[in-house]
Amino acid sequence: MAASSNTFLLTINCGSSSLKFSLYHAGSLQQELSGSVDAIGTASGKLVISKQEKPLPGQSGGFKNLDAAVKAVIRWIKHSQYNNNLLAIGHRLVQGGPNHRAPQLITDDLLKTLHQYVYLAPNHLPDEIKNIKAFQKAFAQLPQVACFDTAFHADMPDEAKYYPLPNKYREQGLLHYGFHGLSYEYIIQKLAADGINVNKQNIIIAHLGNGASMAAVKNGISVETTMGLSPIGGLVMGTRSGDLDPGVVLFLLKQGRLTAMQLDTLLSKQSGLKAIAGKSDMQELLNMAANDAKAGAAITTFCYQARKFIGSLAAAMGGLDLLVFTGGIGEHSAVVREMICRNLDFLGIRINEKLNNQHKENIGSSTSNVKVMVLKTNEEAIIAQHTQTIILK
Amino acid sequence: MAASSNTFLLTINCGSSSLKFSLYHAGSLQQELSGSVDAIGTASGKLVISKQEKPLPGQSGGFKNLDAAVKAVIRWIKHSQYNNNLLAIGHRLVQGGPNHRAPQLITDDLLKTLHQYVYLAPNHLPDEIKNIKAFQKAFAQLPQVACFDTAFHADMPDEAKYYPLPNKYREQGLLHYGFHGLSYEYIIQKLAADGINVNKQNIIIAHLGNGASMAAVKNGISVETTMGLSPIGGLVMGTRSGDLDPGVVLFLLKQGRLTAMQLDTLLSKQSGLKAIAGKSDMQELLNMAANDAKAGAAITTFCYQARKFIGSLAAAMGGLDLLVFTGGIGEHSAVVREMICRNLDFLGIRINEKLNNQHKENIGSSTSNVKVMVLKTNEEAIIAQHTQTIILK
Repeated sequence: MAASSNTFLLTINCGSSSLKFSLYHAGSLQQELSGSVDAIGTASGKLVISKQEKPLPGQSGGFKNLDAAVKAVIRWIKHSQYNNNLLAIGHRLVQGGPNHRAPQLITDDLLKTLHQYVYLAPNHLPDEIKNIKAFQKAFAQLPQVACFDTAFHADMPDEAKYYPLPNKYREQGLLHYGFHGLSYEYIIQKLAADGINVNKQNIIIAHLGNGASMAAVKNGISVETTMGLSPIGGLVMGTRSGDLDPGVVLFLLKQGRLTAMQLDTLLSKQSGLKAIAGKSDMQELLNMAANDAKAGAAITTFCYQARKFIGSLAAAMGGLDLLVFTGGIGEHSAVVREMICRNLDFLGIRINEKLNNQHKENIGSSTSNVKVMVLKTNEEAIIAQHTQTIILK
Repeated sequence: MAASSNTFLLTINCGSSSLKFSLYHAGSLQQELSGSVDAIGTASGKLVISKQEKPLPGQSGGFKNLDAAVKAVIRWIKHSQYNNNLLAIGHRLVQGGPNHRAPQLITDDLLKTLHQYVYLAPNHLPDEIKNIKAFQKAFAQLPQVACFDTAFHADMPDEAKYYPLPNKYREQGLLHYGFHGLSYEYIIQKLAADGINVNKQNIIIAHLGNGASMAAVKNGISVETTMGLSPIGGLVMGTRSGDLDPGVVLFLLKQGRLTAMQLDTLLSKQSGLKAIAGKSDMQELLNMAANDAKAGAAITTFCYQARKFIGSLAAAMGGLDLLVFTGGIGEHSAVVREMICRNLDFLGIRINEKLNNQHKENIGSSTSNVKVMVLKTNEEAIIAQHTQTIILK
């Protein structure tokens, strides 16, 4: 079946408690519809689908786990008008190891390799592999494409890519990979489409959501990013600690008498904003902050660490021309954007309060030497693009 | 015995493989002599003493451990003309826990507290406690004073002081302490003495040695520093990793099947420059770099990480007026200073090649918006000062 106006690409983007999918016209890459299952594991989880902003019948009543959510999505597609017109399925994958960065067709060999590298992303990769297999079973005839979140950062210079640790670990895949690559790729494409010469600029993209990272994109290349080997590193996040003095981890191991698994859970799921204020959701914290000092402290910490990383990434590039906010928090929280940019005057960053509060695309003041933007990201669009490219090869 | 021109204060500054001591006139705080034992644990270790730059008879033949070195220093003093004219002994201590930051008289209670907090600095505090006891035994009648390396950073704001980890660990003393405080205190005093209004400036002090850290001193207060709970954090160092994505530590634990102790040794003694190039000494690496790509990579990594932290600390303060290099590497390596400052033009940092190569006190170019200085540090002078203050209270 060739790409035509009647054929579609399905994109799958799976988080730890959510599953997003979209259908794109295989030729034009216009989005046909999008859907999501949120709050997986709770009774309030819903499958919500919309076509050109209009809701289609979904499913409520909760999904006990990711498998149940995947099954519901597959069932919905199987019973839809699209079932016989699918051309391929594209998946977002957190990690493919050191040798699998570029998007590629999912083969048995690739799946074997992914299994091999589960230790690099133990909290994400097992679920993603399971998803792929579920879709392979349901749509055995369709090609499936893996789009790795690490691809965007594949060309970092050695001093950013390697850890100062014994070489034998590097051979086991211990590298500074970085994540959120599909989001960064989308933002760079969008900037280029808007006429910005991304190949001659120093750009920081702040993808701020429950998981959050920043990338330093110099002349179109990601030269540094805050997340490292794992998505726990870098910024303080909803439930993740971000970078730490390794002495802190040793303290937790020895004093807390934690096993490696318990330590992983602590640093991935019980740290960050949640540890400071009891809640991990930024919007909830912003609502609480007026009457809750801990919520205020969590927001202050988040913004302070983000501000320091902007300084750090600007130094990695030797300057800064453009700062882009994206991701759930980056797109929707004017307060967080303002607090992050506070006192960054010395970098030439000045935001206009009114433009910022209105979530305008350009929020820099007229005297700002650095362009400051708010852009909606779209990882699914990039998955669709790569899936199209791979299957038409 | 009161402070007079004939009475002296002894200062003790103990590292992992070296022991430095000095005698100061108790009244004027003029240095009388200084000595050191280097290369402890090797056959080439020597006790070297000099008085106003002239060598006095010392001792060679090696010291098998720190105890042997301490004994040699005590013996030397006991047999010197100073033995009956000592007024007090001041010690540099890495850590006194959350409630002991300011310099204080060493009492049995303080020693008990230090024992309690060994887990906060397991690689340094046990030796330091042992030293204090050896000097107490040898000079039972003398008051001894503890000067903590954490004191300078005691007033960091909450968002810098606390880790985004569950509160119960904070109650166990898990704080961002920071170290090299005696060195930073000396530099700030020196700047003030030179007429710089340290209370109205944003200053970064880069104390670069085998152990290395930076402090952001805003209006005279340390508001941020690169080392954290432990001296492993922050910058890439001779044998220490610096800050890491905690996922890296989890990887080492799980993949390397390391115990907490082995992990500590790996991150404290087998990482950093040594892991990249096989050597931890910066001067050795600089000598090798022309013919050794790994040595070059180690130097590049060190300078790159330092550069990023300068950006980060400048952002923490909201600007930068003055950058000071100190410590063994900071004072003596023009190449490292130049490489760190490379591409920091956007922060207003420009160094003059000639002044830098001559290790002048001011190495900024005439167009540099940030003053850039090279200053020799002197932790012993601060220990003597605090010891004098405490015993004269």
